[in-house]
Amino acid sequence: MNLNADKYIRLALEEDITGGDISTDAVIKEYKKGTVSLICKQNGVICGLSVFERVFKILDEKVEVEFFAKDGDSVEKGQHIAEVTGDIRALLSGERTALNFLQRMSGIATCTAEVAALLKGSKTKLLDTRKTTPNMRIFEKYAVKCGGGNNHRYNLSDGVMLKDNHIGAAGGIKQAVAAAKAHCSFVHKIEVEVESLEMCAEAVEAGADIIMLDNMSVADMKKAVALINGRALTECSGNVTRENIKNITDAGVDFVSSGALTHSAPILDLSLKNLHPVEEK
Amino acid sequence: MNLNADKYIRLALEEDITGGDISTDAVIKEYKKGTVSLICKQNGVICGLSVFERVFKILDEKVEVEFFAKDGDSVEKGQHIAEVTGDIRALLSGERTALNFLQRMSGIATCTAEVAALLKGSKTKLLDTRKTTPNMRIFEKYAVKCGGGNNHRYNLSDGVMLKDNHIGAAGGIKQAVAAAKAHCSFVHKIEVEVESLEMCAEAVEAGADIIMLDNMSVADMKKAVALINGRALTECSGNVTRENIKNITDAGVDFVSSGALTHSAPILDLSLKNLHPVEEK
Amino acid sequence: MNLNADKYIRLALEEDITGGDISTDAVIKEYKKGTVSLICKQNGVICGLSVFERVFKILDEKVEVEFFAKDGDSVEKGQHIAEVTGDIRALLSGERTALNFLQRMSGIATCTAEVAALLKGSKTKLLDTRKTTPNMRIFEKYAVKCGGGNNHRYNLSDGVMLKDNHIGAAGGIKQAVAAAKAHCSFVHKIEVEVESLEMCAEAVEAGADIIMLDNMSVADMKKAVALINGRALTECSGNVTRENIKNITDAGVDFVSSGALTHSAPILDLSLKNLHPVEEK
Amino acid sequence: MNLNADKYIRLALEEDITGGDISTDAVIKEYKKGTVSLICKQNGVICGLSVFERVFKILDEKVEVEFFAKDGDSVEKGQHIAEVTGDIRALLSGERTALNFLQRMSGIATCTAEVAALLKGSKTKLLDTRKTTPNMRIFEKYAVKCGGGNNHRYNLSDGVMLKDNHIGAAGGIKQAVAAAKAHCSFVHKIEVEVESLEMCAEAVEAGADIIMLDNMSVADMKKAVALINGRALTECSGNVTRENIKNITDAGVDFVSSGALTHSAPILDLSLKNLHPVEEK
Amino acid sequence: MNLNADKYIRLALEEDITGGDISTDAVIKEYKKGTVSLICKQNGVICGLSVFERVFKILDEKVEVEFFAKDGDSVEKGQHIAEVTGDIRALLSGERTALNFLQRMSGIATCTAEVAALLKGSKTKLLDTRKTTPNMRIFEKYAVKCGGGNNHRYNLSDGVMLKDNHIGAAGGIKQAVAAAKAHCSFVHKIEVEVESLEMCAEAVEAGADIIMLDNMSVADMKKAVALINGRALTECSGNVTRENIKNITDAGVDFVSSGALTHSAPILDLSLKNLHPVEEK
Amino acid sequence: MNLNADKYIRLALEEDITGGDISTDAVIKEYKKGTVSLICKQNGVICGLSVFERVFKILDEKVEVEFFAKDGDSVEKGQHIAEVTGDIRALLSGERTALNFLQRMSGIATCTAEVAALLKGSKTKLLDTRKTTPNMRIFEKYAVKCGGGNNHRYNLSDGVMLKDNHIGAAGGIKQAVAAAKAHCSFVHKIEVEVESLEMCAEAVEAGADIIMLDNMSVADMKKAVALINGRALTECSGNVTRENIKNITDAGVDFVSSGALTHSAPILDLSLKNLHPVEEK
Repeated sequence: MNLNADKYIRLALEEDITGGDISTDAVIKEYKKGTVSLICKQNGVICGLSVFERVFKILDEKVEVEFFAKDGDSVEKGQHIAEVTGDIRALLSGERTALNFLQRMSGIATCTAEVAALLKGSKTKLLDTRKTTPNMRIFEKYAVKCGGGNNHRYNLSDGVMLKDNHIGAAGGIKQAVAAAKAHCSFVHKIEVEVESLEMCAEAVEAGADIIMLDNMSVADMKKAVALINGRALTECSGNVTRENIKNITDAGVDFVSSGALTHSAPILDLSLKNLHPVEEK
Repeated sequence: MNLNADKYIRLALEEDITGGDISTDAVIKEYKKGTVSLICKQNGVICGLSVFERVFKILDEKVEVEFFAKDGDSVEKGQHIAEVTGDIRALLSGERTALNFLQRMSGIATCTAEVAALLKGSKTKLLDTRKTTPNMRIFEKYAVKCGGGNNHRYNLSDGVMLKDNHIGAAGGIKQAVAAAKAHCSFVHKIEVEVESLEMCAEAVEAGADIIMLDNMSVADMKKAVALINGRALTECSGNVTRENIKNITDAGVDFVSSGALTHSAPILDLSLKNLHPVEEK
Repeated sequence: MNLNADKYIRLALEEDITGGDISTDAVIKEYKKGTVSLICKQNGVICGLSVFERVFKILDEKVEVEFFAKDGDSVEKGQHIAEVTGDIRALLSGERTALNFLQRMSGIATCTAEVAALLKGSKTKLLDTRKTTPNMRIFEKYAVKCGGGNNHRYNLSDGVMLKDNHIGAAGGIKQAVAAAKAHCSFVHKIEVEVESLEMCAEAVEAGADIIMLDNMSVADMKKAVALINGRALTECSGNVTRENIKNITDAGVDFVSSGALTHSAPILDLSLKNLHPVEEK
Repeated sequence: MNLNADKYIRLALEEDITGGDISTDAVIKEYKKGTVSLICKQNGVICGLSVFERVFKILDEKVEVEFFAKDGDSVEKGQHIAEVTGDIRALLSGERTALNFLQRMSGIATCTAEVAALLKGSKTKLLDTRKTTPNMRIFEKYAVKCGGGNNHRYNLSDGVMLKDNHIGAAGGIKQAVAAAKAHCSFVHKIEVEVESLEMCAEAVEAGADIIMLDNMSVADMKKAVALINGRALTECSGNVTRENIKNITDAGVDFVSSGALTHSAPILDLSLKNLHPVEEK
Repeated sequence: MNLNADKYIRLALEEDITGGDISTDAVIKEYKKGTVSLICKQNGVICGLSVFERVFKILDEKVEVEFFAKDGDSVEKGQHIAEVTGDIRALLSGERTALNFLQRMSGIATCTAEVAALLKGSKTKLLDTRKTTPNMRIFEKYAVKCGGGNNHRYNLSDGVMLKDNHIGAAGGIKQAVAAAKAHCSFVHKIEVEVESLEMCAEAVEAGADIIMLDNMSVADMKKAVALINGRALTECSGNVTRENIKNITDAGVDFVSSGALTHSAPILDLSLKNLHPVEEK
Repeated sequence: MNLNADKYIRLALEEDITGGDISTDAVIKEYKKGTVSLICKQNGVICGLSVFERVFKILDEKVEVEFFAKDGDSVEKGQHIAEVTGDIRALLSGERTALNFLQRMSGIATCTAEVAALLKGSKTKLLDTRKTTPNMRIFEKYAVKCGGGNNHRYNLSDGVMLKDNHIGAAGGIKQAVAAAKAHCSFVHKIEVEVESLEMCAEAVEAGADIIMLDNMSVADMKKAVALINGRALTECSGNVTRENIKNITDAGVDFVSSGALTHSAPILDLSLKNLHPVEEK
């Protein structure tokens, strides 16, 4: 498990168990081996299986999980996704936290897959944003990739995005790009947000690597793409729906980013079923 | 700010800023005072204003926020909710984290208010669940209350819920309740999940304080409520929609719990607008 | 080992070993297997054996502990409680921290058992309080249970206790109980502290689940119990001694709470004896 | 406040407040200034006032504490020790944690002062041990000093103590002392625990700085002191009581150490009284 | 102070003060205001002044530092850099930790400035590496910039570098670059390490953004730069000395990276002088 | 691995891997066993092998390291020091952090060995100082010992050093030593820094255990040593070079301390070579 993800998984367990699982501790006083099935209750894309497993392993390192699907797989209602075997107390105490991660990650992967499907056949790729749930970014960005999307910058430290306020503070696009080139590591591409064709032209001249076309009409976006002519990558933002999809793909931008993938995707319904004791071998 | 909430807010900032806000640091080298407006972009219920403020204060303790609404207030599209004033670098670097908290909390409060409105006039109250986003429970449970809902137990340590597996392990409802009374502090009420009228009768006899009627028909729930006759509180779970609302209120249960309030509410759209420098006084 | 207890055990080791056990490190340069006996030096109740074991396991996960008693058992002077086997360096470096936990927890269990014995035969049960040693609550509350006592609320977040200042701030008992019912999860019972029969009557009417009779004479406590008549649980506080025991049990209260169990119990004397090398198998 | 103490104080508050003080939060919704008196309920030695203050300051940095006594002062039943003024919610939520620290530290200071008084007039000084409550050492060692005792080593890393197992592993006292001199910083004195006059002689020869006379008769201790003749400091361990005091002082050792000071001292009873609102100036 | 830097500064103080500054605490029992001068003892480039200040502020937030130079300035032997005023105990306890940061950061800035000076007039820019002291990267990378160098990627998560093992695992340069483009966010430039002109050609074809010429002769580097012809940035690594400088600049690469800047720079000698009490105003 | 060292090793890995090793994760999607050789590239003293191993074990507990040298051994250019075998992803992701520790620790051990060699044959021993890299002290002090040096105090809490400011605040050397004896545990030796023979005489009279001769001429140091005449240990500070070595040893002091050992030693060059897949057995 990823070094940094582990910290959040542990924290989430501590959030749910501050002084013992008092219901389980009351009735099960000793180790008893059991098994429980992870079942899908909706069609979708599964994501977060190693996080799901890690929750139980933190509670009891002897828990074993057998998987019948892997992250990114399409799954169907009723499908048996995994079988979790170990101390029944760990299965009961970890259930909710494990499902809270898995359902949310799978919900995002499912939503992303639906949106990405709309873009299929076009040159435009789907991006996420930094509009993630606090302390869930490492999981949510991973879920976007599992659903077929692409990741924009991870955070404020690993990507440059110059917006109107940055440009204003620097005294113009040219100055802002120059300041970013001087300040930031050369391994980061520089993105500039523009609101007009004039700004777009300035940004290309200044050497921007990526240009975000903000709030532009389809017509203007087409002109911007033509103007840029491959000298920079292009991005627009906004919800991708069956209704507006043609506008976006017609504009010919390289990327479209969508905050809704991470901030408003409903969960994918999953549950643990049929917990029962098993014989020790 | 609540002692424990603060830990998560700080972590969320560290998630977004691992080594500086490289865009802002590149163009703004010195302290410059500015102000920015928090504007609502959708009708809903606002929630999380002190968390929003805390994000900026952690970045620069001199940031000041003036509020024009308070948690739990209904807000409208276009409404000016708050004005944030301080070092422009803190305003830029904290914007996304502050909004990520506020939008999610307000989304949950808004969703809760809509569902709670459906129950108005009945005796049945709306409850949340432990189906919260990992490491967001302290914020999400608060948002449910701001939206007019009620909180079920906070976590596995501060409430007792005996489900089929606990009952099976104990050897029956009577034994499970007795075990819980022996193990847990007497300040916790004991809840038992039952699937039939027979189990319901057993749970009342055993001295359960709360009985969760799981997967019962409306007719059975009515019978259960009659059988219990005030000797325990009653709860059912499930989505509350305009369509099924009459079933729930007709059943006469004290509480209905809904996981969707926290796991599937879309955000409330809010944004920071019109950032501009101001004169130092 | 409980997820949250582990944090404190690790901290306690870090408190005792900031830069190595310089005495042991000086003379034992390599792994050498040894064994040492945990011996009881006073009659009492043993408690904290898994914490004792965990201390050594954190230092070296290969240490094995064989137990000849279990938490809550009465033990006698001279009794062999456990045998600890592993790297002699871990046995030496962990000894003091392991004993510091075990002796304190066993001291509390022993003290609780003595007090609980005085109540035997009456309906009154013994409770602990929040007067625990800072950062030891999880261990001390567990020790009270092992000694035959019962736990009151764990902390300020999982139980409601309305004292005179809360009542004053709310404007009366009725208002305070109503505020608590509105604010707190319905899974928590509501306790009110009263100083007179009038307040007691008000608290029952207001729907308090538990009534704490504060500083009342035995005669008044009897009247209060009669007045309450089973509509709420009753608690009084104070030291339980051979001298005052009859007063307490005569009063007919359900619970008596005692801070001294956790804040003033002397330790139970235990020691590690006869450390010697053993052959590797 | 000491950098490292602060960590433990904060942890102790987090132990008591995992999700808000639900009683106080229910009835007091807004800032209200109040004041409360710290009153002594037993004669003793006060200790821990800055820790007491820090608890409230962590909850609300605007709380002010006025002190009428200082650490190490003898205090009497009924004495007004301090006045705490600030947000009533902070006063209520911090009360128990603040008192838990203060009562325990004052209990240790009081117990130490009583034992130290018995040694007055002799050359023998009173020492504490590492038999402290886990995660309380920084507070308990300070309390011993406030009570007129002296500190032995803080932990396994800042003092050398060679016991029988170290000596056995090294192959003799001479070898063990040589190994310690080679391994440990020369700023640490080297202490050797001896059980006979022969071992004592060996330890002096080997260059031990401190010799712990373990389980020796008074007659043997006298002989040991004579034999050592000022070439090393001497220490014995054991409870110091009115009954055995003459034995200890007659032996002529430099130090006597007592674990009971920290592991079995009862608390000093203190309380917060007369909380009431005050006008804002 | 940067959110993440603060964590390391606090840790460093805790490393040096585990249980109080026992020398200072012994002789100075009360607050006493004093002032001390930061004096440079060698010519060089100063760097880390805000870290230096932060050390004292953590010990006592009322300490004030007046600066007579700023990060990146050339300083001379004997120059008065800053004046620190506050509680003498904080000045004494923080001195070593503050200087340890400042001397190391200034040493790196000084070393970087010397190397960067050698490159002046050429197109080749100086880069740092990930060969930093563990847990000092945030400080050391900053120091490189203050000395006139440029930062390469911060860590394994914010830049792509495909070495021979990555290329081997992927099955070729083309496949490795494609895999990186598929896996990593498009905001990161992709760097490929090549050892021959053939590999160089392949990397350009594959769309690498940066090409690291590893262990190539000057003649080959020139051919590589010609072959790449502006389609990618070029980097070579190695020590930059007065002797080899012409080779590097002649090769015409865009960047030369040097691990020695951070792993082997000696400190810049600085000291705190003339501590003396001052009157309270 | 030492309890406290582990915290820093883990932090160092988190510093380098905030969100995955994106290069390695892109091209190696599954577990693949490999092996890599640790090769020395310079003559020197190796130090830090268990830290080196621990880095890989934290990433994947199944990594195995076979060592062909041990800490403190002299190693030669080209020597094969160790073989690391395990998941290739762990080998690649851990390489830089493992080497950063090992190279720095070996650099310090090597430098220390060179300086210690100059003192060979004299009575004067080499000491380190607190001039270590922040958050590296536990590693750097260990490296000094591996190189044949000795450790001075670990930090401000485990050794007493009274400098001019302490002496001034106390009102004289006699008073300062008395204050230290009263305040500090008797297990710590007391060191006094003196600048003249008068001060030296005073310090001996006052009972100082160690006297630091600050900035004295060789002639004065000789007089001081004669004056002290074995009643205290003596220390001088300063760089030990081939040029000044005779002065230091002639002075006859017991110890000479050198900050350069830890603050300015260049690394020892080491590298991981020949990574290649191996068959699973």
